[in-house]
Amino acid sequence: MNPWICDRTSPLSRGKPGEVVDVRPLGSALASAQTATLFRAEQVEVRRLVVPAGKEIEEHKAKGEIVVHCLEGKVAYTAFDKTHTLEAGKLLYLPTGEPHSVKGIEDASLLLTILLPKH
Amino acid sequence: MNPWICDRTSPLSRGKPGEVVDVRPLGSALASAQTATLFRAEQVEVRRLVVPAGKEIEEHKAKGEIVVHCLEGKVAYTAFDKTHTLEAGKLLYLPTGEPHSVKGIEDASLLLTILLPKH
Repeated sequence: MNPWICDRTSPLSRGKPGEVVDVRPLGSALASAQTATLFRAEQVEVRRLVVPAGKEIEEHKAKGEIVVHCLEGKVAYTAFDKTHTLEAGKLLYLPTGEPHSVKGIEDASLLLTILLPKH
Repeated sequence: MNPWICDRTSPLSRGKPGEVVDVRPLGSALASAQTATLFRAEQVEVRRLVVPAGKEIEEHKAKGEIVVHCLEGKVAYTAFDKTHTLEAGKLLYLPTGEPHSVKGIEDASLLLTILLPKH
């Protein structure tokens, strides 16, 4: 069975199993970048979330566990009733359903590894 | 339910839900670093795999899907009958059971996000 599911809603190119995906900091391209699904597989989806400085993503809950990895820039990440500053190379784990919100302190991109609930 | 499972076999400190984990390149500390489980939760385990230059991890299969993210250095990663060079910021997805092997070209560390099979 091919576990690959194509996500046609993503604006950027996506990897396939065995293809190398580039998750380096976008640097000067960050200002015009958009959030993109990098790939989606059987149980996991990997996205690059672009958070411009000043942008706030209001509190919400995720449908699965999430690993948040800051690739560049700086955000304020609120979860577990605490606000953390996430900078490049800092990572945070959120269990399923944990309410969280994000605010860009500097232009930032975050690598989100989202565990998809099994059907 | 607390999804957190403590891994007492890991030599390095581990995060807990809501704690920020440092996955920046180890730089000069890489030469003396060891592979470590950074955290393990309900459905996911995150490890930093240290691969010294010249070291080979022979072909094996994983019990779950894996996302491999090179944090620093350079490795040759063989999967799907192809060998890829992974450098910092490059990421590869492996489906469950895909045979793969790794060889250090330079001292390297890889962030492994391993999806644990549900019980």
